[in-house]
Amino acid sequence: MSTLEDRLRAIVGERGIVSDAAAREPHEVDWRGQYRGRAAVVVKPANTEEVAKVVSLLAAERIAIVPQGGNTSLCGASVPDDSGRQVVVNLSRMNRVRAVDTANNTMTVEAGCVLAALQKVADENDRLFPLSLGAEGSCEIGGNLSTNAGGTGVLRYGNTRELVLGLEVVLPDGRVWDGLRGLRKDNTGYDLKHLFVGAEGTLGIITAAVMKLFPKPRATATAIAAIEGPTAAVQLLSAMRGRCGDRITGFELLQRVCFDLVLKHIPGMRDPFLEPHPAYILVEISDSGTQAEARILLEEALGEAAEAGLIRDAVLASSDAQRLAFWGLRENISEAQKLDGVSIKHDVSVPISRVPEFFERTDRALAERFPDIRIVAFGHVGDGNIHYNCSKSERQAAAEFYKQAPDVNHLVYEVVTSLGGSISAEHGLGQLKREEIKRYKSELELDLMRSIKKTLDPGGIMNPGKVL
Amino acid sequence: MSTLEDRLRAIVGERGIVSDAAAREPHEVDWRGQYRGRAAVVVKPANTEEVAKVVSLLAAERIAIVPQGGNTSLCGASVPDDSGRQVVVNLSRMNRVRAVDTANNTMTVEAGCVLAALQKVADENDRLFPLSLGAEGSCEIGGNLSTNAGGTGVLRYGNTRELVLGLEVVLPDGRVWDGLRGLRKDNTGYDLKHLFVGAEGTLGIITAAVMKLFPKPRATATAIAAIEGPTAAVQLLSAMRGRCGDRITGFELLQRVCFDLVLKHIPGMRDPFLEPHPAYILVEISDSGTQAEARILLEEALGEAAEAGLIRDAVLASSDAQRLAFWGLRENISEAQKLDGVSIKHDVSVPISRVPEFFERTDRALAERFPDIRIVAFGHVGDGNIHYNCSKSERQAAAEFYKQAPDVNHLVYEVVTSLGGSISAEHGLGQLKREEIKRYKSELELDLMRSIKKTLDPGGIMNPGKVL
Repeated sequence: MSTLEDRLRAIVGERGIVSDAAAREPHEVDWRGQYRGRAAVVVKPANTEEVAKVVSLLAAERIAIVPQGGNTSLCGASVPDDSGRQVVVNLSRMNRVRAVDTANNTMTVEAGCVLAALQKVADENDRLFPLSLGAEGSCEIGGNLSTNAGGTGVLRYGNTRELVLGLEVVLPDGRVWDGLRGLRKDNTGYDLKHLFVGAEGTLGIITAAVMKLFPKPRATATAIAAIEGPTAAVQLLSAMRGRCGDRITGFELLQRVCFDLVLKHIPGMRDPFLEPHPAYILVEISDSGTQAEARILLEEALGEAAEAGLIRDAVLASSDAQRLAFWGLRENISEAQKLDGVSIKHDVSVPISRVPEFFERTDRALAERFPDIRIVAFGHVGDGNIHYNCSKSERQAAAEFYKQAPDVNHLVYEVVTSLGGSISAEHGLGQLKREEIKRYKSELELDLMRSIKKTLDPGGIMNPGKVL
Repeated sequence: MSTLEDRLRAIVGERGIVSDAAAREPHEVDWRGQYRGRAAVVVKPANTEEVAKVVSLLAAERIAIVPQGGNTSLCGASVPDDSGRQVVVNLSRMNRVRAVDTANNTMTVEAGCVLAALQKVADENDRLFPLSLGAEGSCEIGGNLSTNAGGTGVLRYGNTRELVLGLEVVLPDGRVWDGLRGLRKDNTGYDLKHLFVGAEGTLGIITAAVMKLFPKPRATATAIAAIEGPTAAVQLLSAMRGRCGDRITGFELLQRVCFDLVLKHIPGMRDPFLEPHPAYILVEISDSGTQAEARILLEEALGEAAEAGLIRDAVLASSDAQRLAFWGLRENISEAQKLDGVSIKHDVSVPISRVPEFFERTDRALAERFPDIRIVAFGHVGDGNIHYNCSKSERQAAAEFYKQAPDVNHLVYEVVTSLGGSISAEHGLGQLKREEIKRYKSELELDLMRSIKKTLDPGGIMNPGKVL
């Protein structure tokens, strides 16, 4: 009798099976190194038909499937458990751009396309694909869709969900749903694509998608504004949006501690100001006009904000190199925090209007109960999304710090929930928050989710142990 | 034993029951007068709790429910059948704006709020609520959500689906799902709200929603450009978007025949050009800058389009009155067509790049098979959405013309489908296209829709006979 691996090899060929133990390892451990599993087989189909055949076979055998793209999940959503019985279906070989339609402002892409490659394809066609996030050099669009990835462009362009017009999905029974429509308007029944976006591979495997493209901005102006703190941040956002409209494409909050960490750990970084300030906003506007116009608009808007007492100081990037340096301060925070030691991370969101209250209440409660913890908060304040991370103090041992994690999480999530917020703004649930979410989501909502799961995947073979 | 009406009256009170036959009539017949039903009771609950109690009672009795808002559906989605056994649950009394949060750019509104009233609320709060369509003076936001309404603002702001952050829904068993979150980012499981948006009341009753608000544009510039036809329209759209970016908030195509009808039937309308042209584009840009800047930008963009041979002529609105007159030409087409006689309407969409091919193929095929038919096409070409209407010629009798409708529909829909398009871009399916859709949607997709319907509404009591 042939083994499972042989039968899968018969579908995907030799190139479609990852046999070597060393080559398998990156498919079995998550990006943060927190979840280490063991797969029965790691299979890499080359096209939709192969995916469908693989899923049909595994469905018939009732073998669990873990869909995987670039495997950059921060919640352990894309790795197998340690049973050695789950099959990883990695989509990375499906990396063709099937079509670019500039008149329709769409591109039809396969799940395994790396995000940065798609940004480049759009650029080469004089268009913008606005999805942008830290992992863009290795994450894949199928994973972005399955986790409804956010990032820095959400304020203006929306989450991944808002960027997709159509999907191709291999269902848990192996049937292929061809929903690859490139339409802006289609009101012919239930919108099925939204079921699969953000489902973290628990309802099927996304194999291809029609993604929106946008006119490429001709001009960009970037500044860092020094501010008092979160209250000023929210007021500044409102003032800047009133003045610059939808030109605002970046609005990131950085607390002083983030600057300190980046300046300490990342070579070549420098503080754009002569003296320290409590917090900063990295603001960027993009426009179809000239560079000079964009710069003048940003200058004027910041000038008015200074007059209104919303900012303490501001520096405009005077060159592309300086713009990249400003973004470097923002994008190196995670890396600097990693170099600085262990941390407890929270990816939370609240209504933008409640951001100041979130900081006041959480900062105070943490300081009272966990005086040794340092708060390293930053994030997409324009979306109400805060990466409210906690680092240990120097006098604390890592193990002792980690022991506090459940209580720290609980404290943060209680405040978030009381403000109508979310305990996972953009990272998803995966394995990491699968249990935690039960405390914060209503039983009715969990019940609806379970019903949908059962309807689409009655055998429970799609990415079990994730989300639900 | 008390009657059903008595039992419902015990929940909603005297004011919540429409007893008078004359008062019931507008709830039993659709806006176009094509579907005339008879309800067992017309009930108007005043709040969510009453809706939940009404639904619980009707679910227990297995009585079918027809959710209804402003009852402006063009597809008969919001009227009862003629059995006299269905209960109309009209949401119009639930018309409170529960909250406006300007810092979060959201408003929380009840289903019965009239769309125009919500535009006004936004305006009074120095914000824009961009949903805009012909029926805005009487349609209600619950209906807009249930049909995923489109309209003229979709190019820039998206459909109703893209404008909603959270929902409150009474489920078919009477439970209330409180999903009224005002979050830009929330990745904690399946996105349930998208199930109910566009479901035309077949999965539950939307009772309230958190809707997005936007910065109010400070300047608007409007023009009518004379063009050769659809090919030029698509090229002009691409050129204008490249030049003006997202400032383009309106891009409507009108064929010459539309002008003729409006000028003939609507008093006070005039042709902005000295001589007739084959087709026109009504283009509008909105911006946060000054009026003068917006006007100059539009002038320059149209000047460049003229140089590139994309337009034959153009007239810019020089006053607000002239702007309204331009829009009057567009907005009175349906009314003028109605006054001119009977018509067969198609609300179709194709990828924007296929719009010219759609026109070429459909125009030619119709002219060959139905030489007496006059095509009156217009629409949101920026979304690939064409209202491809057919009027009868003067020598044809209405009955004879109508007899051709199924064959005309079939011809149009075949072309649409072969171009990857939709037979209902923004109006939904309702009763009108419930059978027709089976020809054009894959069995797999219909199967998925039926599974979801069965999961959420196992008794099949929510708006039966619509969509599925």
